[in-house]
Amino acid sequence: MAEPAKNLKNAKTAITPTREENFPEWYQNVIKAADMAENAPVRGCMIIKPYGFSVWENIQKHFDRMIKAEEVQNAYFPLLIPLSYIAREAEHIEGFAKECAVVTHHRLSKNEKGELAADPASILTEPMIIRPTSETIIGESMHNWVQSYRDLPLKLNQWCNVMRWEMRPRVFLRTTEFLWQEGHNAFATAEEADRDARRMLEVYRDFIENYLAVPVIAGSKTPEERFPGAIETYTVEAFMQDGKALQSATSHNLGQTFAKSSDIKYLDKDGTQKLAWTTSWGMSTRTIGGLIMVHGDDDGMIMPPRVAPHQVAILPFVKDDADKANILEFCEKIQKELRSKDISVQTDKSDARSSDKMWAAIKKGVPVRLEVGAREIAEGQLTLTRRDLGKDGKVKVPVAECAAKIAAALEQMQKDLLANARKRLQSQITDVKSLKDVRDYFAAEKQGGLKLDYSLVKGSEEFAAIKQEYAVTTRCLPFEDNGQKVIVAKAY
Amino acid sequence: MAEPAKNLKNAKTAITPTREENFPEWYQNVIKAADMAENAPVRGCMIIKPYGFSVWENIQKHFDRMIKAEEVQNAYFPLLIPLSYIAREAEHIEGFAKECAVVTHHRLSKNEKGELAADPASILTEPMIIRPTSETIIGESMHNWVQSYRDLPLKLNQWCNVMRWEMRPRVFLRTTEFLWQEGHNAFATAEEADRDARRMLEVYRDFIENYLAVPVIAGSKTPEERFPGAIETYTVEAFMQDGKALQSATSHNLGQTFAKSSDIKYLDKDGTQKLAWTTSWGMSTRTIGGLIMVHGDDDGMIMPPRVAPHQVAILPFVKDDADKANILEFCEKIQKELRSKDISVQTDKSDARSSDKMWAAIKKGVPVRLEVGAREIAEGQLTLTRRDLGKDGKVKVPVAECAAKIAAALEQMQKDLLANARKRLQSQITDVKSLKDVRDYFAAEKQGGLKLDYSLVKGSEEFAAIKQEYAVTTRCLPFEDNGQKVIVAKAY
Repeated sequence: MAEPAKNLKNAKTAITPTREENFPEWYQNVIKAADMAENAPVRGCMIIKPYGFSVWENIQKHFDRMIKAEEVQNAYFPLLIPLSYIAREAEHIEGFAKECAVVTHHRLSKNEKGELAADPASILTEPMIIRPTSETIIGESMHNWVQSYRDLPLKLNQWCNVMRWEMRPRVFLRTTEFLWQEGHNAFATAEEADRDARRMLEVYRDFIENYLAVPVIAGSKTPEERFPGAIETYTVEAFMQDGKALQSATSHNLGQTFAKSSDIKYLDKDGTQKLAWTTSWGMSTRTIGGLIMVHGDDDGMIMPPRVAPHQVAILPFVKDDADKANILEFCEKIQKELRSKDISVQTDKSDARSSDKMWAAIKKGVPVRLEVGAREIAEGQLTLTRRDLGKDGKVKVPVAECAAKIAAALEQMQKDLLANARKRLQSQITDVKSLKDVRDYFAAEKQGGLKLDYSLVKGSEEFAAIKQEYAVTTRCLPFEDNGQKVIVAKAY
Repeated sequence: MAEPAKNLKNAKTAITPTREENFPEWYQNVIKAADMAENAPVRGCMIIKPYGFSVWENIQKHFDRMIKAEEVQNAYFPLLIPLSYIAREAEHIEGFAKECAVVTHHRLSKNEKGELAADPASILTEPMIIRPTSETIIGESMHNWVQSYRDLPLKLNQWCNVMRWEMRPRVFLRTTEFLWQEGHNAFATAEEADRDARRMLEVYRDFIENYLAVPVIAGSKTPEERFPGAIETYTVEAFMQDGKALQSATSHNLGQTFAKSSDIKYLDKDGTQKLAWTTSWGMSTRTIGGLIMVHGDDDGMIMPPRVAPHQVAILPFVKDDADKANILEFCEKIQKELRSKDISVQTDKSDARSSDKMWAAIKKGVPVRLEVGAREIAEGQLTLTRRDLGKDGKVKVPVAECAAKIAAALEQMQKDLLANARKRLQSQITDVKSLKDVRDYFAAEKQGGLKLDYSLVKGSEEFAAIKQEYAVTTRCLPFEDNGQKVIVAKAY
């Protein structure tokens, strides 16, 4: 197994502060150095820049294929939800739908001062909210579309923007507007719904581990942490390098909560009308924040090859202008060959200095760098460097074997990233025996997840006090412990 | 060249009314029969159902590849635009940004009557509007991102939802919320900007003709019809079967309008600060409406193979239950083989009657139907029917040649749809010599486009009266006539 990248010899890092010095600031600076996103002028919102958006496009491409294999169909439902729809499901409002953007007018006009303003004459008879999630409006469609048992299961998904007003926004992790997919499935029986909610969580686990190379702990949420209206919330929890947890995707068994409030009924084979059972499941641009905090190092981002905007950076190193045309032509040939093998690649044709080209690719976390200079061409050997191995991992590869060696390096890197992150995850979870252990751990300002008997936590006033005092949360009851244990950690 | 499908012998059509009887109602009923979309409970909005959304996914897939080949990068900008941004560009507001959703509050709470309502305490200091288009907010980013001539050209695109409050909504054609792509490019010189605006129009023409099989007339808009703030608007205009025009995509040379209002400046090679030149270009879910009105017939939708949700419907015709397992297994084999050849296919495994299966596929416009019954298996010959040729186009194909014959049929059908539509388009445009001819044409309730000298129309009061009286518009000054002629027609 490969070791994580070491800092370069002179101990200068591309990102300051380092992870150890100040993790939250390091995070912001990695995003900036990799040119992935920035805060929008609109409070709480972000602009996803091309390099960051390309990661989201890759997430969409692969995950969309996986959900279609589950016979889920994509569709599109309205952005605006009438207030009366939200008001239908009391528990849903309480826990959820309060901090949201409210649309009250449908026209602008000039007011008496000659300033542009909401036209008072255009006030809506019923205000609308921008969807924070779409259970209520998709429930209305399910009510219309589901008539008989033959219409079930009904599995729908939409890729869209949603909005939840955030007072303490952080790029990717918590933004007022974010992008996500929301799946909404309906079934004839309780058993099918629960099986589906667990199945979709397994699809998330598979995707997050095998594409994002982020290992997760899969389990159930405690009743207090469930999605409002759900009878079970299943979750995959990842752990960042600072020891905090990040909920990476959730899948909810909604029981008949929304079937009741939206009146989703079907005529069963036995001739009687029955209420359906529904699930919902979502994953958002927040996973990109997790990707950064799991894989990044003090030199910047490290992209897992399967979702990297480009997997290879070809770096033409031009020492003598006379060689330039020749080197660029050679790079073009290599680029073409790699693309023909389905390897995504970008050549840095700028006039930047060689070291600047190298550092730009490092900060962006391009999985493999390929240095091409006059000497390399003369020798017929290119220098290949894996981002996660750093200088120690440099290898010379004969030109003819270049594509095959790169493909192998990408595959190995994908595996190594996951294996290293899994090793770290294991070291981040500590088994403890008592609430005193929990208190001592967080009082000592240690960071990480604790695992203990759920019976010690459930209904405990002492635990409630610890939660409050140290801002820790119950992350999940891991499946592997059959609901007997609970993971406690600070979280994003 | 193939002839359009004829009605079946008994003259019964799957869609009533027919196109001739009532074109607008026929349109709505085709959408319903093909299960593509429906009106949302939210006024003016639509729900795009899985079969309709799949067309949009195919449009996105192909067009996204084409714009990436133009070195356009995808990104994502906020949904909400502060009022002050919109207020910056006066002409833009006048022509555009008035009928829009206004967000005034960010929280719901219970009022004194105990009802859920916008919380008065959460009123925004500055109202926001839901983007009707994003020139102003992307302009702000361009202002930040563009520093030097090295940062240009900058070519950005986003696939997103936008909102323009519609008083007379029609599914796909005119909806309060719709999906689209909006491209926003910035350049150092006026020449580059105009070349780009024309280039992106050419990409639209290529896509709309060669993927949607919809022939278009490309040209410039008259000054009155330009996008507010543009110095040139280029357009591709399609003609529907009822003779009305549909603006299918537009590309704008925005000159320095938005560069001025957003202060997009760059340091040029000569050391001086210069204002950039920008363009924008968009195509929306409205093109799906055009697809229906150009290709559909009195039996329902006809999908061009390149954007069809599935290109082949395999229809197992089971007369004797004893044959069922055998027939389905055979269909499975065929389906697998077609998929291995990148042909998208769906097998109707329902218990519906054979004729119902056939009519369902016809109404959905599946390009090729493949009938598989016990006799077909025994004879080793399958019945292949092209949707656009109807019964007369039925052919028997040996099982072994099935995939190759289908691939050829799909390719030919794609060509035939375009060729037939182009023939019709040519017949729909009439050259006329005077404004009297124009008046006579529309007074006689004829439908179609008229082409005449632009000099007769420009600034003419008589033409203004005709426009008013017959609700006709100038569609474009076709490129092919070098701006000397104008197309006049009613339009969607």
